[in-house]
Amino acid sequence: MCPHYPTVTPRCSQATWELDVSEPNETFDTVILGGGSGGYAAALRAAELGLSVALVEKGKLGGTCLHNGCIPTKALLHTAEVADQTRESEQFGVKAELVGIDMAAVNSYKDGVVARLYKGLQGLVGGAKNITFVAGAGRLVAPNTVEVDGKRYTGRNIILASGSYAKSLPGLEVDGERIITSDHALVMDRVPESVIVLGGGVIGVEFASVWKSFGVDVTVIEALPRLVAAEDEESSKALERAFRKRKINFKVGKPFEKVEKTGKGVRVTIAGGETVEAELLLVAVGRGPNTAGLGYEEQGVRMDRGYVLTDERLRTSVPNVYAVGDIVPGLQLAHRGFQQGIFVAEEIAGQNPAVIDEAGIPRVTYSDPELASVGLTEAKAKEQYGADKVKTYNYNLGGNGKSQILKTAGFVKLVRVEDGPVVGVHMVGARVGELIGEAQLIYNWEAYPAEVAQLVHAHPTQSEALGEAHLALAGKPLHTHA
Amino acid sequence: MCPHYPTVTPRCSQATWELDVSEPNETFDTVILGGGSGGYAAALRAAELGLSVALVEKGKLGGTCLHNGCIPTKALLHTAEVADQTRESEQFGVKAELVGIDMAAVNSYKDGVVARLYKGLQGLVGGAKNITFVAGAGRLVAPNTVEVDGKRYTGRNIILASGSYAKSLPGLEVDGERIITSDHALVMDRVPESVIVLGGGVIGVEFASVWKSFGVDVTVIEALPRLVAAEDEESSKALERAFRKRKINFKVGKPFEKVEKTGKGVRVTIAGGETVEAELLLVAVGRGPNTAGLGYEEQGVRMDRGYVLTDERLRTSVPNVYAVGDIVPGLQLAHRGFQQGIFVAEEIAGQNPAVIDEAGIPRVTYSDPELASVGLTEAKAKEQYGADKVKTYNYNLGGNGKSQILKTAGFVKLVRVEDGPVVGVHMVGARVGELIGEAQLIYNWEAYPAEVAQLVHAHPTQSEALGEAHLALAGKPLHTHA
Repeated sequence: MCPHYPTVTPRCSQATWELDVSEPNETFDTVILGGGSGGYAAALRAAELGLSVALVEKGKLGGTCLHNGCIPTKALLHTAEVADQTRESEQFGVKAELVGIDMAAVNSYKDGVVARLYKGLQGLVGGAKNITFVAGAGRLVAPNTVEVDGKRYTGRNIILASGSYAKSLPGLEVDGERIITSDHALVMDRVPESVIVLGGGVIGVEFASVWKSFGVDVTVIEALPRLVAAEDEESSKALERAFRKRKINFKVGKPFEKVEKTGKGVRVTIAGGETVEAELLLVAVGRGPNTAGLGYEEQGVRMDRGYVLTDERLRTSVPNVYAVGDIVPGLQLAHRGFQQGIFVAEEIAGQNPAVIDEAGIPRVTYSDPELASVGLTEAKAKEQYGADKVKTYNYNLGGNGKSQILKTAGFVKLVRVEDGPVVGVHMVGARVGELIGEAQLIYNWEAYPAEVAQLVHAHPTQSEALGEAHLALAGKPLHTHA
Repeated sequence: MCPHYPTVTPRCSQATWELDVSEPNETFDTVILGGGSGGYAAALRAAELGLSVALVEKGKLGGTCLHNGCIPTKALLHTAEVADQTRESEQFGVKAELVGIDMAAVNSYKDGVVARLYKGLQGLVGGAKNITFVAGAGRLVAPNTVEVDGKRYTGRNIILASGSYAKSLPGLEVDGERIITSDHALVMDRVPESVIVLGGGVIGVEFASVWKSFGVDVTVIEALPRLVAAEDEESSKALERAFRKRKINFKVGKPFEKVEKTGKGVRVTIAGGETVEAELLLVAVGRGPNTAGLGYEEQGVRMDRGYVLTDERLRTSVPNVYAVGDIVPGLQLAHRGFQQGIFVAEEIAGQNPAVIDEAGIPRVTYSDPELASVGLTEAKAKEQYGADKVKTYNYNLGGNGKSQILKTAGFVKLVRVEDGPVVGVHMVGARVGELIGEAQLIYNWEAYPAEVAQLVHAHPTQSEALGEAHLALAGKPLHTHA
C-alpha cells in the first residue's frame, strides 16, 4: 500500500515499500513531523540542547499560525482597527474621510508581514547547524521512523506535530467560493457585501469583527448559548454588548440546520426554521487535528476522534513518541505549541522540565473589543474550590484613564480563592490582549492580590486597570469602590 | 505677616493672625495639603483605614495630572496617533484622506475625558464619609495645622502634597503667548506652524511628538547629550532614530542661551551661537516643587532647593509631618504619588507598609514611539554591581509579529545580574507602555530570566517580546539568536 502523500510524488504510486527503503536512511536524535509552531519550536530548542533534528514539513515552515492563522488574521484585524479609527476620527478631533478598503493593498500588507516573519524563521531554522529541514509530506512508518518521499528518517525520539485544519460540519460542503473557511477568507480579493459566520468562537468573532470594520453586513450564528462560550460568562456578555453596539448581528443558542445556495449567495437555516441570507458563509466551527493517513494509529499511537492522546509530559502511548500542538486535545493556540515544543525538546534532552499547566496559557481573542484571559473562569473556579471560597472583582474600564482616552469599554475581572491566590483573570476592551502578559505571571506565580496591590502601575495606562482590580480585591481600592 | 495665598482672600490682607485663629478649629487624624495624585490617594486610603481626613486643595481635585498633565497630554497623544494612522492608512490597505486637525474638537475630546474622570474622582472623595474636602489655598501655620481662608485644620498627622509647577529658566520669561509652558500648550486653540521645544525630557518629547503628528515643524533643543537622558542610552538612541525618521528636528548637547521675539515668533540662540526660529517656544525644562510661601520652612521642615526632604518612610524632619509626590526629590510621576500617598496613609494607620523601591516605579514616555522602563539602566546596573557582573539582552521588535503588524520598530532590553535577577527592563516601540505592567512585576518580584522563560506569552502580542527576551537571556532563545 502506498502511503498517503498530500503532495504525491510520481515515484510513490509506482513503487513498493521495499524499493523506498532502499533509499539511504538517516538517523537523528529527534525526528519532528510538522514544522508549525509546535514542531519548529521543538526543533530550535532541541538543536540548542545539542540534539540532531530532522524537521519534516509538507507545506511552509511556520505552519498554520504564520501562513493561515494568527499572523494574517491579526494583520486583517489591524487594518480593521485603522479603518475604524479613521471612520471615527472626528471624535478625537481628526478630520478625515474613509474612502474604502483596498483589498489588494490589504493583502499586500498582510503578505508582507507574513513574508518577513517567514524569512526570519527560515533563517533561524536554516542557521541551526543541528537541524535538517526536510521538505515533503511525512508519514510515521515505524515507531521510530518518518518517511518522506520514500526516504526514511529514524529518530531516537519522534515528535508528532502535524497540526490542524479548518473543520466543517457534516453535510456542509465547503466550495471555497460561497461557502468558505478561514483559509479562503484570508486570501479574498474583494470585500463581500454580507457574510454569515457559522460559529461564534474565537475565529468566528475575529472574522466578524474584521468584516464589520470593512463595512460588511455580518451575522454570526452560534449553537451554544453565548459567543466565545469558553470564556468567562461576563466576557461573553461584554462582547455581545459591544457587538450589538457595532451592529454585528448574532444569534446564539441556534444550531445550524442547513445551507442552500441562492441566486446571489447562500441561505442558512437554523434551529426553529429561521433563515438568514448573505453573499457568503464562513464556516468557523473550529479546527480538527491533522492526523488522518499519517500512520499514527498503525504504529500504535493511541488516538481519540483524531486527536493524539498524551500524558502530562506529552508522551504518547508509544515509547519515545511525543505529540505537541493542535493534535493534542486542549487549547489550539500557537503559543501552546511553542511551550509544548520547548517542553518536549527539554524532556528528550533529560532536563526534566516542569509540567505545563494548561490553564496558565494565556488566551486572547483579537476582535474589537479584545478579550483576554488566563486561569479559571468564575464558574470553573467555583466548581473547583466551592462557590463560597471564590471571590471576584470586576473593575470597569470606565474608571481607567487610558481606556477613556481610547474610548473603549470593558473590564478587568479577577477570580481569587478566599485568602488565596488569583486563579483567573478575564479582560475585555481595546488592546487588553497585551495585558495578559502581566496577568499570566500573576496566575502562574500564584500571586495574592495584596502582592500585586503593593506595587504600582504606570499612569495613565490600561495596565493600571489590573492594578486597580488587585487593589480593590486586596481591600484597598484606589480609583474605585471595594 | 500675611500668609501667601495664591488665591488671596480680602480678609487676609487686613487681618492679623490672632483674628484668624478665632475662627473655629477642626481636628482630624490627618490633614493633607494638596488634592493631586499623592494627596487624594493618601486621603482615600486613610479614609478606608478609618482615619478622619481633611483634604485641602486650592485648585481642582486631581491636581496637575488630571487637569494639566498626564491625562490631557495623553488625550493629545491619542489624537496624534489617530492622525498618523489616518495619514499612513494606505500601507494597511485603508484608503483615507486626512483633512486636518480640528483643535476645537481635540479640546472638546480632551476636556471630555478629563471631565469624566474628574467627576468620578469627586464622587469617590465626596462619597468617602471620613474625608472633609476643603476648597482653598492652605498654608502650614503650625507643625500640626493647615490654615485655609483663616480657618485652621489641625491634624495628628500632616501630609504635604502641594505638587509641582512647570519651571522656566533664569532670564526666560514665559508670556503664555509666544513663550509657553505645557499649561498653555494644553489649551491651545490652534495648530502652530512651527515650535521650538526647549527640553528633550519626557514632557518635551511628548509635545514634540504630538505637534509633529499635527503637521507642525518641530525642533527640540536639549542641553544634555541625548534625548530622554534619564533613560537607558539605547532607548535614547532608538528614540532619536525614530524622531529623525519622523523628521522631528533635535539638537542635543546644546544649552539654551537666549530667546528673542521676532516679528512672527521667537528666535532661540543656543550654545555656539546657532539660532533657531519658530512661531512658538515651549519651555519644557522640568517641573519645580510647589512649596514657596506655604510655611514649610517656617515650621521647621527641612528643604533642599524647594524640595521637601524625607526619609525612606516619607517622614519630614518635623514629627508627624509627611510629604508625598512631586515635592519629594525623585521621579515626578502621578503613580509615584499614588503609591506614596497610600504608603503614608498606611504608615499613619500603623500598618507598617514596606518601603517603596523608587527604581521599581515604572516610567513611560508616551511619544511615538513610546518608551517604557523599570529598574536600572545598564550603566547604573554596572555601577552598582560591577561591569562584569551585568548581562544584557536586546530583543529587536523586528522579530515580533504584532510589532510587525503595527509596523513599529524598537526593542525590549533586559539587564540582569549574572546568575541573578532581572534588574532593569527598557523598551521602545509603539504601545510598549502597556508592557511595563508585566516588567515591573518581574523587577519588583526579583524574577530570574528562567522563571519568566518557562511561561508562555500569547501569540501574536507585543508582550511576547518580553517573553522572547527572557528566553534568550535564560539561554534558550526561541525566535531569535542568543
